[in-house]
Amino acid sequence: MPELRKDPIIGRWVIIATERAKRPTDYAKEPVLIQGGSFCPFCYGNEEKTPPEIIAYRSNGTPPNTPGWNLRVVPNKFPALGIEGDLERSGEGLFDRMTGIGAHEVIIESPDHQATLGQLPEKRIEDVLWAYRDRIVDLKKDKRFKYVLIFKNHGAAAGATLEHTHSQLITLPIVPKRVREEVDGAKQYYLMKERCIFCDVIRQEQGSGLRVIAEDDAFITLAPYAPRFPFEAWILPKQHGASFEEATSGLYEKLARALKNLLQRVDTVLDRPAYNFVLHTTPMREDTELYYHWHLEFMPKLTKVAGFEWGTGFYINPTPPEVSAQALREVPAPAPAFP
Amino acid sequence: MPELRKDPIIGRWVIIATERAKRPTDYAKEPVLIQGGSFCPFCYGNEEKTPPEIIAYRSNGTPPNTPGWNLRVVPNKFPALGIEGDLERSGEGLFDRMTGIGAHEVIIESPDHQATLGQLPEKRIEDVLWAYRDRIVDLKKDKRFKYVLIFKNHGAAAGATLEHTHSQLITLPIVPKRVREEVDGAKQYYLMKERCIFCDVIRQEQGSGLRVIAEDDAFITLAPYAPRFPFEAWILPKQHGASFEEATSGLYEKLARALKNLLQRVDTVLDRPAYNFVLHTTPMREDTELYYHWHLEFMPKLTKVAGFEWGTGFYINPTPPEVSAQALREVPAPAPAFP
Repeated sequence: MPELRKDPIIGRWVIIATERAKRPTDYAKEPVLIQGGSFCPFCYGNEEKTPPEIIAYRSNGTPPNTPGWNLRVVPNKFPALGIEGDLERSGEGLFDRMTGIGAHEVIIESPDHQATLGQLPEKRIEDVLWAYRDRIVDLKKDKRFKYVLIFKNHGAAAGATLEHTHSQLITLPIVPKRVREEVDGAKQYYLMKERCIFCDVIRQEQGSGLRVIAEDDAFITLAPYAPRFPFEAWILPKQHGASFEEATSGLYEKLARALKNLLQRVDTVLDRPAYNFVLHTTPMREDTELYYHWHLEFMPKLTKVAGFEWGTGFYINPTPPEVSAQALREVPAPAPAFP
Repeated sequence: MPELRKDPIIGRWVIIATERAKRPTDYAKEPVLIQGGSFCPFCYGNEEKTPPEIIAYRSNGTPPNTPGWNLRVVPNKFPALGIEGDLERSGEGLFDRMTGIGAHEVIIESPDHQATLGQLPEKRIEDVLWAYRDRIVDLKKDKRFKYVLIFKNHGAAAGATLEHTHSQLITLPIVPKRVREEVDGAKQYYLMKERCIFCDVIRQEQGSGLRVIAEDDAFITLAPYAPRFPFEAWILPKQHGASFEEATSGLYEKLARALKNLLQRVDTVLDRPAYNFVLHTTPMREDTELYYHWHLEFMPKLTKVAGFEWGTGFYINPTPPEVSAQALREVPAPAPAFP
């Protein structure tokens, strides 16, 4: 008998197939392979093909917009929003709109065209997380914005248009609906219980162990109880905190380790799938410290997953999280890197 | 400058690209072509390859589960939910679950393997709508259920696994989140204004005409103000009503005409794309008559649309609804059928 399960934070029900559950080997293998060979605006020597860099991490004192960097953040050449101008709100009868003001930036995670994020050394992944933090801290000063959305698309199937490893950042003058629901859901729970719901989930999952993928002193990686997608995984800090950008500095090193660990497990178990991840941190200028709990949500894009949810907004997940967690947990860690 | 627009019913903001907006010709053509040639369980003579039919429309008095039908409704051979058993609710610490009780049926829309829904005669499309109604009316009697979700996936890119034209029906012991938000949003508006928000949208769109695709005495086809997807379109009855299944009988004939009209326009403008549509009708056993307004939501699955929203739950639509509405409106109607 399949199950209906409810996400405890936002209240969304999903169908979890429990019989004939799809195991890792039931998914068609379509590994993301870096092709290389054609012109890439994110490689050394092509710095003038992107808009001028906003920040870069360089270990050798080379000047801006020249080779020698380990990481660069540049404006997106084809931004979804415009950074200049006033935020103007207007109505059109019963409709509401705003000018599309916002930053749209690209974090070029490495000069190495061939490496995926999961293959980078932990120190380089830590740099990526510091870049996220530095950009959030800077963009929070801009009073026009209410949210910084940071996400990564890896592989064409997950929406990446360039294969050179990178993430993206979009600042918004509104709070995205999915984040709003999460913050409001966590607040409701806190009002009832005086506890953070994410902390409660962590405690319960530690107790059962059924959906734990990995854990160390600082982070726990879980398959959520009611996942929308097969092999969805969340990385949560064990110490409560609402803001990714206000984490204690040692935490980025540990998150880099947890993220690399997850990406390597996924590459091994699912054969280098396309994936997305999204950083969930608190909206700006809202005091959510008591009840919100930042985390990272990871979802591989497995082919041959039916398009049911595309239209209906309702999810059928053919792999229970207990099955995906076990498969990811039991792979030897550190998993072998692909050459 | 791009715009942020808010859906007036559920409050979701989306980014609408207004410069460099993508026109129909900017989307890669990947027409859904019916291949035929291999075994099909939905064709005449293969009736025993599906579970026994629940209903069938036959004009010639042939017995059940034999050829001669115009339309068949059968249980899905690989159901997402199980129809037998009691609905059992249980907790697992702070998590909530139910047994996955529900019907999962397939509406085989025509015996013709080669025809798409948009190519069927209006009378046959009307049969499909009557089948939706008949099944909803029957399934509403089952007290375990709160919602009947009816949807169609056309083309592999939209999640269809069989090419023979069909739609699907799933009954659920919960109300899907997207429907819940719509019903609640409409109720809030009604409490403020004592008017149906969908009726207000229709009136406003008739006034401006900017986003109207087609209109007759009974139905209006609109590109919604804040669409998630390029070329998204809604077909709304002009007369207020919460329940599709309680529409006056003449309305199904007119909806068949409006749906065929939209599908033909889309096939011409976008070259036979994969698509989904979802019927939005009221939840069962809730009195939403004053404020909810049933309708049909259609979205083509255009390739090369970035996967941004996959992870973020936030939508960037590269084609403003004014552009998509104009393109669909201006194609000669009735558009040519493809052979």
